[in-house]
Amino acid sequence: MVNVEEALGRQSVRQFEIRRVGVAGADTAAVANDVVATEEPLEIRLGYFVDGEHRERSISVTMRTPGKDLELAVGFLYTEGIIRRFDDVASVGPCGPPAPDGLINVVRVELTPGVDVDLDRLERHFYTSSSCGVCGKSSLEAVKVQSRFDLHHARFTVSRDVLGRLPDALRAKQDVFDRTGGLHASGLFDAAGEISIVREDVGRHNALDKLIGNRLMANALPLLDFGIVVSGRASFELMQKAMMAGCPFLAAVGAPSSLAVQLAEEFGMTLVGFLKRDRFNIYTRPDRVV
Amino acid sequence: MVNVEEALGRQSVRQFEIRRVGVAGADTAAVANDVVATEEPLEIRLGYFVDGEHRERSISVTMRTPGKDLELAVGFLYTEGIIRRFDDVASVGPCGPPAPDGLINVVRVELTPGVDVDLDRLERHFYTSSSCGVCGKSSLEAVKVQSRFDLHHARFTVSRDVLGRLPDALRAKQDVFDRTGGLHASGLFDAAGEISIVREDVGRHNALDKLIGNRLMANALPLLDFGIVVSGRASFELMQKAMMAGCPFLAAVGAPSSLAVQLAEEFGMTLVGFLKRDRFNIYTRPDRVV
Repeated sequence: MVNVEEALGRQSVRQFEIRRVGVAGADTAAVANDVVATEEPLEIRLGYFVDGEHRERSISVTMRTPGKDLELAVGFLYTEGIIRRFDDVASVGPCGPPAPDGLINVVRVELTPGVDVDLDRLERHFYTSSSCGVCGKSSLEAVKVQSRFDLHHARFTVSRDVLGRLPDALRAKQDVFDRTGGLHASGLFDAAGEISIVREDVGRHNALDKLIGNRLMANALPLLDFGIVVSGRASFELMQKAMMAGCPFLAAVGAPSSLAVQLAEEFGMTLVGFLKRDRFNIYTRPDRVV
Repeated sequence: MVNVEEALGRQSVRQFEIRRVGVAGADTAAVANDVVATEEPLEIRLGYFVDGEHRERSISVTMRTPGKDLELAVGFLYTEGIIRRFDDVASVGPCGPPAPDGLINVVRVELTPGVDVDLDRLERHFYTSSSCGVCGKSSLEAVKVQSRFDLHHARFTVSRDVLGRLPDALRAKQDVFDRTGGLHASGLFDAAGEISIVREDVGRHNALDKLIGNRLMANALPLLDFGIVVSGRASFELMQKAMMAGCPFLAAVGAPSSLAVQLAEEFGMTLVGFLKRDRFNIYTRPDRVV
């Protein structure tokens, strides 16, 4: 599986001929070659059994940056609540032959026979209540149903100094961003501020799904003794994914949304926003910052 | 309809009690009230006729910032290729009673009888080819099928100076961002750099759908004599939406993705990235920058 993963990991950047323009300069624009973060669709297909009969269907098409696609597929299925552990997966790999450019844009996940698939969840209607109504409260309720870990009592703590060093540490580990300036990142850090895993993607949720997929495949969930740092804003979806992975602490370089704060509150998670070298805001559970 | 729209426009921010922390200071964290951009799910429901029989179904649940929700619903249906003009819409409005906090999280769009609905498109499988394969090429092909306007010959041009002023002009018009630091924006500008419409959202595609929905409802498409400026990165989806709206020029404060560049190339659009006060990059069709 490692070889396949490496094969999928190529081509995270593409080169284009561009013009670099200065606003003030009267001179003509300089023609240059520029590398751009690759964005390509990834289709995730699921094979599974219902009443002894095998079925296969497309679950999702997400626009992503190629690389770590198996982690992305498995992480997505896990954070969406479709699988509960890596043992639920019988196999995961590319589907069909690669495109002429070597890129593989379909990953197929075959579930272990006997694993129940929640078809409602597959329909992605899990935000929608039965009546004609959907609201923040029902979103939180839906997450609660999926909740696997009690994070209220997670004892992970981190110091102010460690938090202040995270943005630079994350950036230093962003390979593709350096070249393109164009990718979101998610990093996993411990109490000492050591970032052990970084994943990048044009989609912020994909970067986190890759990270969580990596940990799931290593049977390393829940992430009770870790925090997650993200390069952008903290949305509801990112908090939900962190919660599903059993991580009690999320720090975002950007702003949080209201529903991200509400989710953190409800599930006993610490949410830090506007994380800079010298300052940050704590939105929930400040007792984990020491 | 204006009244309803205004009713939906409340509550784009929420207030929370937070801790502001300085990394260096040994003093305790200051407790403060902070406003955060609201994120709530919006469900879009579609009513339509097939063979004389009325049907209704949920099309999409998107996490969005409340406000201009009717524009969002109509703009989404348009940029996804489900409706082709505002006349295709018989009615658009909130579905069911508002939540206790006044928020309405379901918008229902009833199509004009006789309007054909492409059910495949509703299934959101339009990236997926019939075989087990999906790739950037098929994404571009799918967009081509939907293409309504020939942008290769659009004669809109803009000067370097005007481009350099756009980021500050956009920021100056971002009401909610000022208070929260947390929202994406899309702005519509003319050749003189005048930004006539700005829409904000936690989701970058929602901000653009709101803008396009506004223009669709004013029967002001295509946007051949305008450019769109976005606060973040230029993704495939944003370029696709601009193309559907007949806008030949997109300028992004952030980086573009590979597929955004490829789409711009294919459809004769100008794509500017890394737009700053004093410099920017032109990825495609530099002849529109004078």
